[in-house]
Amino acid sequence: MNELKGKKILMIAGDGFEDIELMYPYYRLAHEACADVVIAGAKAGQGLEGKNGLQVTTDVAFDDLDPSDFDALVIPGGQSPDHIRIYPEVIRFVQDFDKTGKPVAAICHAVQILITARLLKGKDATGWKSLAVEIEDAGARYIDKPLVQSQQYIFSRQPSDVGFFCDAIINALSPGESAKAADMVRAT
Amino acid sequence: MNELKGKKILMIAGDGFEDIELMYPYYRLAHEACADVVIAGAKAGQGLEGKNGLQVTTDVAFDDLDPSDFDALVIPGGQSPDHIRIYPEVIRFVQDFDKTGKPVAAICHAVQILITARLLKGKDATGWKSLAVEIEDAGARYIDKPLVQSQQYIFSRQPSDVGFFCDAIINALSPGESAKAADMVRAT
Repeated sequence: MNELKGKKILMIAGDGFEDIELMYPYYRLAHEACADVVIAGAKAGQGLEGKNGLQVTTDVAFDDLDPSDFDALVIPGGQSPDHIRIYPEVIRFVQDFDKTGKPVAAICHAVQILITARLLKGKDATGWKSLAVEIEDAGARYIDKPLVQSQQYIFSRQPSDVGFFCDAIINALSPGESAKAADMVRAT
Repeated sequence: MNELKGKKILMIAGDGFEDIELMYPYYRLAHEACADVVIAGAKAGQGLEGKNGLQVTTDVAFDDLDPSDFDALVIPGGQSPDHIRIYPEVIRFVQDFDKTGKPVAAICHAVQILITARLLKGKDATGWKSLAVEIEDAGARYIDKPLVQSQQYIFSRQPSDVGFFCDAIINALSPGESAKAADMVRAT
């Protein structure tokens, strides 16, 4: 229930986020695993609307982000990644965060941000199926599975993968829990 | 990750469901804990719209429900409970399900269905704060906490309680996991 207590997780988003891909990880990580989850947008305190109508408010502006403040970066999909990758500060932040070696989790269209940031080369990756060609063009190997992990990166394809996606984020941030969770699976 | 594999869970809903209260338990129980989750509505194959715009399709009609088919009943809130409690087959089903002793989880306005079904008497309960007086009038003790458990019943107040709500549902359906989960909490 509180396996991520004390961890700080950043989500970056804009209008048109895929509602499930933002809200499920948000509630799973903040309300069930008890992490401190912060949502960044172009401006702080800005209302964002998901492509299916759900609303969230940003906590902080892209411009004010510091990679050392967060234990993991989670990027929801939908139309949001294509909207926010035009901000140079988003690309710079993601490149700086990559260098820390801390977990980066990208679902669905989130991989577009990693393509623009030129961070996919040599990795196994997945994402929404329409993006398979550009994922390969960016130098990654596209794998059609609900969860693909490569170095510090966690990739999923679509809303129905959110269970695998969040499980992998939690395990990446609490390796002790991960070993115990593996025992739990083996025991069932 | 698969602690509810083989379990079958029923959700009952109508238009105006609280989007997070339906979607979060659905993904948590079906996609992360691997239960078989079925959504019932007035008709099978019917599109339902949440109060904030999310869409789901029902799998089965209220009329075709049999309590012996399911291991637990989960009722999301929003405007949906008040809409569906006018169906006599909903009230009859909930009363029959109560007699099985299996877990019933009600969040926010879901408790309205239990009031109409006269199932609250003598219990501790919670729900959306506007309902405190009628929860007491129905013979229960209203407790303002994110999670209240009384006999086979699991109650929560609002969307921000979904972490506690789902954790309690999972623990009620997999007591072995629950003991291990308690160990995990103590170990952290």
